[in-house]
Amino acid sequence: MEKRGKRTWHFENPVYVQSTGTAVGPEESKGPIRNSFDVCYNNLYAGQETWEQAERQLMKDAVETALKKAEKKPEEIDYFIAGDLLNQIVTSNYYARELDIPFLGIFSACATVMEGVALGSLLIDAGAAHLAMVAVSSHNATAERQFRNPTEFGGQRPDSATFTVTGSGAMIIGSKEAQIKITDATIGKVIDMGIRTPFDMGSAMAPAAADTIVTHLAETKREPSYYDVIVTGDLSRVGSGILRKLVQEKGMDLDNHEDCGIIIFDQEQPVFAGGSGAACPAVVTFGHLIKEMQKKKLRKMLVVATGALLSPIMIQQKESIPCIAHAVSFELVEDNV
Amino acid sequence: MEKRGKRTWHFENPVYVQSTGTAVGPEESKGPIRNSFDVCYNNLYAGQETWEQAERQLMKDAVETALKKAEKKPEEIDYFIAGDLLNQIVTSNYYARELDIPFLGIFSACATVMEGVALGSLLIDAGAAHLAMVAVSSHNATAERQFRNPTEFGGQRPDSATFTVTGSGAMIIGSKEAQIKITDATIGKVIDMGIRTPFDMGSAMAPAAADTIVTHLAETKREPSYYDVIVTGDLSRVGSGILRKLVQEKGMDLDNHEDCGIIIFDQEQPVFAGGSGAACPAVVTFGHLIKEMQKKKLRKMLVVATGALLSPIMIQQKESIPCIAHAVSFELVEDNV
Repeated sequence: MEKRGKRTWHFENPVYVQSTGTAVGPEESKGPIRNSFDVCYNNLYAGQETWEQAERQLMKDAVETALKKAEKKPEEIDYFIAGDLLNQIVTSNYYARELDIPFLGIFSACATVMEGVALGSLLIDAGAAHLAMVAVSSHNATAERQFRNPTEFGGQRPDSATFTVTGSGAMIIGSKEAQIKITDATIGKVIDMGIRTPFDMGSAMAPAAADTIVTHLAETKREPSYYDVIVTGDLSRVGSGILRKLVQEKGMDLDNHEDCGIIIFDQEQPVFAGGSGAACPAVVTFGHLIKEMQKKKLRKMLVVATGALLSPIMIQQKESIPCIAHAVSFELVEDNV
Repeated sequence: MEKRGKRTWHFENPVYVQSTGTAVGPEESKGPIRNSFDVCYNNLYAGQETWEQAERQLMKDAVETALKKAEKKPEEIDYFIAGDLLNQIVTSNYYARELDIPFLGIFSACATVMEGVALGSLLIDAGAAHLAMVAVSSHNATAERQFRNPTEFGGQRPDSATFTVTGSGAMIIGSKEAQIKITDATIGKVIDMGIRTPFDMGSAMAPAAADTIVTHLAETKREPSYYDVIVTGDLSRVGSGILRKLVQEKGMDLDNHEDCGIIIFDQEQPVFAGGSGAACPAVVTFGHLIKEMQKKKLRKMLVVATGALLSPIMIQQKESIPCIAHAVSFELVEDNV
């Protein structure tokens, strides 16, 4: 571990992606990257009786797939690091009781996945773990009723709204040499530019994403072009434009920027400005993008997961939305040698 | 960092408590350890307009006190690691936006404080940070209405119920030599013995506490008597008895066990089985017990924070309560040399 600047951890002891697993719901199973997911459900219940249990089933599918691909048993994993959008992160807590692995609960909304990968990588680099597993989830129906309105309410939504991704992504991280290396992590600051509507989280999150990207590039002394892609979590169509403008104001062009919320759905799907939710950056990264790296179509990737740290009660109390973005860089090993 | 057994981190690069800060509400200000707290409020609003804002004020008071005692400015702290009981940990998120320090959000209910101290110590040991600040909070009124019933409902409660502590504790951790060293951390597993009532969380949490204590002692090859005190977070009068029995079944006597939920209130106070809440182990440890160490009345202390990882919606769906306990050991430096 070598600290670069104030906020970036450069992992000197090698940290590798051992495997990933993804599971998604019906809308994601119709999207353009559907073939990259390991488990697809054609309805929101995933064989369970409640939506909350369905979300837990998705996490179970993602974790079991990752374990199977890495040829590991649960007891071989040293730490399970997980979080989700449900109150008291109950998807993670309740799934963790099945796993019997020491557990670290984390939360930074839709940025949770890269907080987890950053901490998991630190554990490996520091020798605190041989293998760490990170998992996150979100579910359209559990999130809608918790954060906005009862599903039956049927309220109209503006085009700036996003559609919470139903899914879960899991990643096993370890020191054993593999194709993809985790090289650096930049931890986000909480930034709040005064946006008050939970129907425009892309605009709220863009300044946090810009801050983390600019800081990461400065601290690692890299240009944006160092990466084949700089991918944000769920800024969607509205927030992505704002991000590019904010980074441009700092004198850099993000020509290689993509957003998981845009990648995951076709523009014809009924998802407003695009996908969001803790699962959005997880399933797009752990499914589609990691596979693009394995096919050597991408060699260097910076994943900037973005989170809107609101709660309904804060919105009712007329508060604005604080946001955060955590970034992790992934590199094909052959580029390093 | 040297791993001991499967779940214990032994910090080889020295990690020290630089300072602590505590702030509490009215009931805590009348209790037996009231003189150990830095900031006391005589009402639940703490000068704010809502209870949620009051909880944030308590965290601000705790953090600012810790900074002042350590003679540090916020910008000298590398990472802020925080969590609380409110949905989406909004006390921590919203306070973090004022701080402008890279932020890691964590959650393991009332065990959050020792998850934070464990991670903060790992960051110091690994060289990922020079100074890390950990903070947690809870508030009787925000927790009551979120987890149980509207405050005005006035439902009766059984004697096994606990009283959520109103308060916040903050600790600054760093490598600079100081009086108290953080030596080891043992990460908990999620354990669920089938308890379903949120009015008896002490019984639900006792097995997780027993598992972590027994594991910690085995992995560090220590007897319970190695510590002057083994203190649990908020098992209260009901759970403490169960814990001692469970540990006794493993062939060990916990003669030196105390519980923060019992320490913080007098038996005459209207708190049922004792105190609980994320702030309970934080203010008792960071206030009273750390001061007892500074006075050399305690030399070695194991703090086992216990968390009930429930949510109201899981209880409505007839689920039982998964629990976790994270342990951290503190030692007076003179004993180490």
